Amino acid sequence: MIVLAVDLMGSDLGPEELCKGLRAFLKKTPDVSVLAYGDKDKLSEDLAGQDRVTIRPSEQVVPMEVSPMGFLRLKKSSMYLALQDAGKDPKIDGIVTSGSTGGFVIGNTLLVKNAPGVARAALAAPFITKVKGKNTVILDIGASNQNNSDELVEFAKMGAVYAKKIFGVPEPAIYLLSNGVEEGKGLKESVDAYHKLEGFPGFKGNCEARDVLDGTKDVVVTTGYPGNILLKSIEGTAAMMTGMMKAAFQKNLWTKIGYLFARSGLKEMKEQMDYRKTGGAILLGINKVAVKAHGNSNAYAFENALNVAYRMCQSQIVSAISEALGD
Amino acid sequence: MIVLAVDLMGSDLGPEELCKGLRAFLKKTPDVSVLAYGDKDKLSEDLAGQDRVTIRPSEQVVPMEVSPMGFLRLKKSSMYLALQDAGKDPKIDGIVTSGSTGGFVIGNTLLVKNAPGVARAALAAPFITKVKGKNTVILDIGASNQNNSDELVEFAKMGAVYAKKIFGVPEPAIYLLSNGVEEGKGLKESVDAYHKLEGFPGFKGNCEARDVLDGTKDVVVTTGYPGNILLKSIEGTAAMMTGMMKAAFQKNLWTKIGYLFARSGLKEMKEQMDYRKTGGAILLGINKVAVKAHGNSNAYAFENALNVAYRMCQSQIVSAISEALGD
Repeated sequence: MIVLAVDLMGSDLGPEELCKGLRAFLKKTPDVSVLAYGDKDKLSEDLAGQDRVTIRPSEQVVPMEVSPMGFLRLKKSSMYLALQDAGKDPKIDGIVTSGSTGGFVIGNTLLVKNAPGVARAALAAPFITKVKGKNTVILDIGASNQNNSDELVEFAKMGAVYAKKIFGVPEPAIYLLSNGVEEGKGLKESVDAYHKLEGFPGFKGNCEARDVLDGTKDVVVTTGYPGNILLKSIEGTAAMMTGMMKAAFQKNLWTKIGYLFARSGLKEMKEQMDYRKTGGAILLGINKVAVKAHGNSNAYAFENALNVAYRMCQSQIVSAISEALGD
Repeated sequence: MIVLAVDLMGSDLGPEELCKGLRAFLKKTPDVSVLAYGDKDKLSEDLAGQDRVTIRPSEQVVPMEVSPMGFLRLKKSSMYLALQDAGKDPKIDGIVTSGSTGGFVIGNTLLVKNAPGVARAALAAPFITKVKGKNTVILDIGASNQNNSDELVEFAKMGAVYAKKIFGVPEPAIYLLSNGVEEGKGLKESVDAYHKLEGFPGFKGNCEARDVLDGTKDVVVTTGYPGNILLKSIEGTAAMMTGMMKAAFQKNLWTKIGYLFARSGLKEMKEQMDYRKTGGAILLGINKVAVKAHGNSNAYAFENALNVAYRMCQSQIVSAISEALGD
């Protein structure tokens, strides 16, 4: 039995939507039991009759833009309690939330703690690429601002474990994000990491931000601050172009007719780009599986986040990471 | 008379294409004379009969991926000679090249030198936004890797001068790129710059990478390394989505018909996104106007880069920057 601690508060769309996703998830995964954290009355209603769910009542909700200190004061919040239990109870395999990323990172680090052998956890996100069905995991996308070269090497190893276990790639192609492909380009820490990674299986050198999503990379390693910039500029540009496309089809009667004809192709593109499928971000290097769904997750997105956590638990990624870093 | 030193070598498409752009530019700007740097035979042929062009023969070409030391050894190259002359000859107002960015930055810094009062030049690029006709200038996009808070303050001031002079915005809205909008988010240097910029006309605080192109920002200031990541991830994501759109319309007969109907709207989108219109990047803070066209500039793109240089010379941006930084 896989046990997940699931925080059902703090999302943009409310606990009803997350409970709907949780119910759909439980229907398909008979070997999972869930500790559900949130408002007792709300959850009792939305999760009535779910015999593999235990409600753990909470009194507070962590706001999206919480500071680290702010989070640590919210000891009765659903996220704090879920993380605290995950840190103490060996039966819990993983935690899923769609609440504050800041709270999630600080809470995991302090309450669940890093897996043996891990110096620094990294926030990782799988991205779709221009090659259909091919994903790239990028880490760190913002658990830290700055990282030293040893941490970057850790990130490369953790990313490789993730790509093996979750993407099913036998020898993942690993790249360091830089401002040029040549050896020696980039920040000092990444130049040093380049040298430390030489000879590491699958390490291919530097890549530029414009090539991150070209479908040839399994793992892209970066310090947290530029990783966060990368993540958000990809999101922002995709949103801008989606808006432009909509406007292009709304231009006149002909373009509207054009949309109707082209719809099947565009729908496929929309599905391919649907970030809700990837289930959000993952904090790698923590002692438990730790998945952070998007703050605006609908039921479908949250179900996918639960699925990601489930698959990560099944694949025993936490112990695999400890082993890989202990080399 | 405005005098431009124009390097016609080192581009991906060859000097013919650039000469074509130069000829088109000269037709529309009777008050410009040009010093044309490049292969003597080639340019004599392609610029025959141009009475406002003086050919300055060169024997070497700077490769795209040149190292700083490599550039400094290429003393007979078109780019080196153009920059050397721009540094020595007070009659030259500006320099335009579509060659190596690395060579352009190091050459300007060492041969043309910073404008009075400028500690650090910044590579700036105007970006289209989701609001039609509204541009945002982002700097630094890679002249440096790291910058201190005083340099970031300089970038804000230089960006504001650019937005006033070139975008025609009376009081430009200035933002610092960060990983969160709250004061105190980001790297130490940008947190410090935030405090130094408080009260500066038009300074609005932090912005996240996903909102950079939302059309509400005139100037976005960042240290060079994340700025470079931002630039290239915008380019990469736009290219990926353009490819996906093409594939969507190629899917079947219906989608192909849809494309024909929607073409007028899509064409407008394509035009809006055409980076060749913006004319490339600008090195702000240098003693002369310094424009770097895209390496793969066609005639149209190079003509636009020449136009950008022309307008910057006309608006006397170099002295305006020195004044703004001398405050």
